[in-house]
Amino acid sequence: MDLHALLDRIYRELLPSAGSGKVADYIPALAAVDPRRFGLAYAGVDGAYVGAGDCLEPFSIQSISKIFSLSLVLAREGEAIWARVGREPSGTAFNSLVQLEQERGIPRNPFINAGALVVTDRLHALSGAAREALRDFLRTESGNPGVDFDAGVAASEAEHGHRNAALAHFLAAYGNMECPVEQVLEQYFWQCSLRMSCADLARAGLFLARHGLRADGTRLFSASEAKRVNAVMLTCGTYDAAGEFAYRVGLPSKSGVGGGILAVLPNRGCLCVWSPGLDPKGNSVLGVEVLDRFTTATGWSVF
Amino acid sequence: MDLHALLDRIYRELLPSAGSGKVADYIPALAAVDPRRFGLAYAGVDGAYVGAGDCLEPFSIQSISKIFSLSLVLAREGEAIWARVGREPSGTAFNSLVQLEQERGIPRNPFINAGALVVTDRLHALSGAAREALRDFLRTESGNPGVDFDAGVAASEAEHGHRNAALAHFLAAYGNMECPVEQVLEQYFWQCSLRMSCADLARAGLFLARHGLRADGTRLFSASEAKRVNAVMLTCGTYDAAGEFAYRVGLPSKSGVGGGILAVLPNRGCLCVWSPGLDPKGNSVLGVEVLDRFTTATGWSVF
Amino acid sequence: MDLHALLDRIYRELLPSAGSGKVADYIPALAAVDPRRFGLAYAGVDGAYVGAGDCLEPFSIQSISKIFSLSLVLAREGEAIWARVGREPSGTAFNSLVQLEQERGIPRNPFINAGALVVTDRLHALSGAAREALRDFLRTESGNPGVDFDAGVAASEAEHGHRNAALAHFLAAYGNMECPVEQVLEQYFWQCSLRMSCADLARAGLFLARHGLRADGTRLFSASEAKRVNAVMLTCGTYDAAGEFAYRVGLPSKSGVGGGILAVLPNRGCLCVWSPGLDPKGNSVLGVEVLDRFTTATGWSVF
Amino acid sequence: MDLHALLDRIYRELLPSAGSGKVADYIPALAAVDPRRFGLAYAGVDGAYVGAGDCLEPFSIQSISKIFSLSLVLAREGEAIWARVGREPSGTAFNSLVQLEQERGIPRNPFINAGALVVTDRLHALSGAAREALRDFLRTESGNPGVDFDAGVAASEAEHGHRNAALAHFLAAYGNMECPVEQVLEQYFWQCSLRMSCADLARAGLFLARHGLRADGTRLFSASEAKRVNAVMLTCGTYDAAGEFAYRVGLPSKSGVGGGILAVLPNRGCLCVWSPGLDPKGNSVLGVEVLDRFTTATGWSVF
Repeated sequence: MDLHALLDRIYRELLPSAGSGKVADYIPALAAVDPRRFGLAYAGVDGAYVGAGDCLEPFSIQSISKIFSLSLVLAREGEAIWARVGREPSGTAFNSLVQLEQERGIPRNPFINAGALVVTDRLHALSGAAREALRDFLRTESGNPGVDFDAGVAASEAEHGHRNAALAHFLAAYGNMECPVEQVLEQYFWQCSLRMSCADLARAGLFLARHGLRADGTRLFSASEAKRVNAVMLTCGTYDAAGEFAYRVGLPSKSGVGGGILAVLPNRGCLCVWSPGLDPKGNSVLGVEVLDRFTTATGWSVF
Repeated sequence: MDLHALLDRIYRELLPSAGSGKVADYIPALAAVDPRRFGLAYAGVDGAYVGAGDCLEPFSIQSISKIFSLSLVLAREGEAIWARVGREPSGTAFNSLVQLEQERGIPRNPFINAGALVVTDRLHALSGAAREALRDFLRTESGNPGVDFDAGVAASEAEHGHRNAALAHFLAAYGNMECPVEQVLEQYFWQCSLRMSCADLARAGLFLARHGLRADGTRLFSASEAKRVNAVMLTCGTYDAAGEFAYRVGLPSKSGVGGGILAVLPNRGCLCVWSPGLDPKGNSVLGVEVLDRFTTATGWSVF
Repeated sequence: MDLHALLDRIYRELLPSAGSGKVADYIPALAAVDPRRFGLAYAGVDGAYVGAGDCLEPFSIQSISKIFSLSLVLAREGEAIWARVGREPSGTAFNSLVQLEQERGIPRNPFINAGALVVTDRLHALSGAAREALRDFLRTESGNPGVDFDAGVAASEAEHGHRNAALAHFLAAYGNMECPVEQVLEQYFWQCSLRMSCADLARAGLFLARHGLRADGTRLFSASEAKRVNAVMLTCGTYDAAGEFAYRVGLPSKSGVGGGILAVLPNRGCLCVWSPGLDPKGNSVLGVEVLDRFTTATGWSVF
Repeated sequence: MDLHALLDRIYRELLPSAGSGKVADYIPALAAVDPRRFGLAYAGVDGAYVGAGDCLEPFSIQSISKIFSLSLVLAREGEAIWARVGREPSGTAFNSLVQLEQERGIPRNPFINAGALVVTDRLHALSGAAREALRDFLRTESGNPGVDFDAGVAASEAEHGHRNAALAHFLAAYGNMECPVEQVLEQYFWQCSLRMSCADLARAGLFLARHGLRADGTRLFSASEAKRVNAVMLTCGTYDAAGEFAYRVGLPSKSGVGGGILAVLPNRGCLCVWSPGLDPKGNSVLGVEVLDRFTTATGWSVF
């Protein structure tokens, strides 16, 4: 498979559509992004690398960070987190409070906002500093020491963060917050503000394609654990469109409202796409399209 | 109708049951109340007054305060508040977030917590100091200058107020908060901590029985407005048991988790009962029973 | 109070608006009604009668029939029916299945479709022929032996009755149907097809204004029972707009999608309005407006 | 990999637990099954076959039939069915009406009952006889001409089928039924009553492991189509436990309340387990356990 040619072809085919979809505008810092940015990068477990377009341009990774915070918590204390958060697709919008009430304070999964707040809370309690733990891990795995937060985005998230504050207080009302609500929210807003490029993210995700082996060859967690994170990504990683996404693409993936999608190809590598325009469910329009064409061409869907 | 004899009889019949139900225990300050306290007081529009039991003992009025904050907002600016809060029974628990999400940030009515937060927010914006506006009004109408807040209860509410904080942030996320969330919450917790006796409350509610005329003979709002507050009390005043309450009692009433219930008898007077034990819906067990027997004996249901 | 002059004035004021709202069109037989029909009739407990406009024209009473089937069941066996149906406002659309599932097959109240099906089921089991029991009662109370079903409407309801069939099967799945589903549906469709005029309905409802006394002076049920039916009408009688209706009008009322509304004035009489155009909640636009003006002018709201 | 030894070991390890869980008892015909029956069978795309325990004993396949009816509809007319049914996990119980109402008559996916009724409706319209189309396909793919319906189960389902009748009428109310409701229900009840053994099912599912190739080498549908059915199985195949199942097992699977689970191993084969005792979500307790141990031992999860 000539991945270089393939990615190049997909990039050129879709470049004219760059700008499709609606850029997230709930905070000014995201709304200001040029909607025509478009990049993609593939990193193989064998060291292969292919990039196209704006693949080296850092963007706000937003919810893609949730894969990594979950992995760090699982690596530190295994399955204990599942007593506080479920593993089922939500069937509702990613920031809904309804299901949280019906399930009495146990979020459906770690990738909806409520669940991610619980994971950040736990990571903060375990590490003493959730955001630094996360940043350092991402610097190491991506091989890019320049990975960092965007203070403007973090501040903007905090300013417009009433819904996340509502979720966090609601979790606290059910006894499902260890650290003070304000601290957890702050860590969470910083975590979402991390800026990485497609190249950074494709490399940073390889520990999942390698079933637990980090960039330096040490083991983050067991192969089973890695497969399980992949499973949660496939069933819950693309908001309330996970079923549709599994149907069209068939790869464990996690999207963010910054327009990025990171997909894991078990035993092969990671593919990351960035295009800021979102579909109504909150996934990058071009991101989904790239991944669809990629698995159709390669047959590398997990199914 | 010999109201003195009637209330005395009902009091004596039910005294052996004092202690029924479950005292609210979500904050220590409420949980510490003696469950066997039991008082009732009737105040007539003609100046009549009858009391029995612990009718002069102040207790935490909690949600009963919501009648008065709503009335003050209506008196100041009429119907404008209804753009921000509905007038329909909720069909769910008083502190539920579910309906708030379905209705996109417009609480169903002013007596569920979310709606009361909106009313307090507006009263605070209009008066510059919601809690003092409310306290002063209640002192005047009850004729008791000793009506005051309970700082311990207010602090306790704040400490255990994650669910109300969640509601307030959620309202803010939908743009339905004027003042800063923290300020509104503080005002709200103080408002709920007001301590009044059955005698105080029965007198303070008379402006509703007199269709808008205050204790000093001046008009708070029009007769129509007063009838409308009574209507909201009847349909929404006793949490998710308003239908059952209308069926059994048939009077506009408002209950609080402190165990008080204030009922309005249009053109006649007000009856207030206090007994801390609550039924599963959050209404005073003995309170409902007293009112049921009272309207059965007098035939003074509005129906 | 010169009711003749008052009703005449209201009628003339609103006649130009006849045709407002949207005529129910879920069955052809209802959609064919002239939207400009407009009538009203008042019947007093003292024998007074005032009519205006199309007050003698029969129309499809639809859900107004639910007051009478409930009353007949209560008259026959008292409170037993409340084990199978609640008395709380629904907070959702009148034909919703959602709440029925949440409450495990116990409809919220007897005036939403699910609850009315339970009442019809019980009346059918008690009487052997629900629709005839109802028709005969209405003939007697209205004094009009011509009150009858509309076979065309009943057939049309059955043909388009998938949602009611779903509700009935759902109730059966929860064990809350005594008679076979098909029988209950048939009875229900016939019951809804009854044709009566404003004059007929105003007279037929007088037993509620007289607190249980029928047209012939005999007692249908106790004064308490009558007041309780009035209470259910006030809290649940106008679909998901009961709170708004209580606020504006303040009278126990029951509306139907045929455009009729019957209101009870305890101890005074009944007022019935008919205008086929409905508001989005399913209540007659002009009907609500007439009742609002009437209680504003008379001050006869129950509050 | 010595699959014979592996399956034999797993069978022997779990045999003492046979009888765990709760046998479905909503119809007598299912409740009568011996809870200690336990069988498993593996069929490889290479013709390999391994069986253990009651692997040749036919049981009621129930919802497992939904894979095959969906595949037949997709084979006949491709993607058109997705206009009438979604592909998202439901987040609620398999026979819930709530979501159906929220989504206005479009079932979330083809494996909850509402969705399966739509698929059966379409298959019936396309084939003129849904149940025969299905039976004949299963006879051919399993190589067992004895595959047949269980008239007793079908009758029992019909007799206790009020909830499915409610779903079907509800779909019809939203215009999402082509054939008469009664016909579709009948076809559906027969379809669920099909009796097959683990050996039959493991072989019948091979067209999915072979990405569309049938037993006779002809193509049922494209490789993409087959992968897509596998994706829907993974995200929606085990009721409201699909996330948990993906996490533990990681294979596209479909369970039935008869206690069977059929799992697809893309490019490898199919594994079918039968043990009638169910967990609270409706999946066979031992079935899930067998598959968990199997993928842990082989590493053949798709992730």
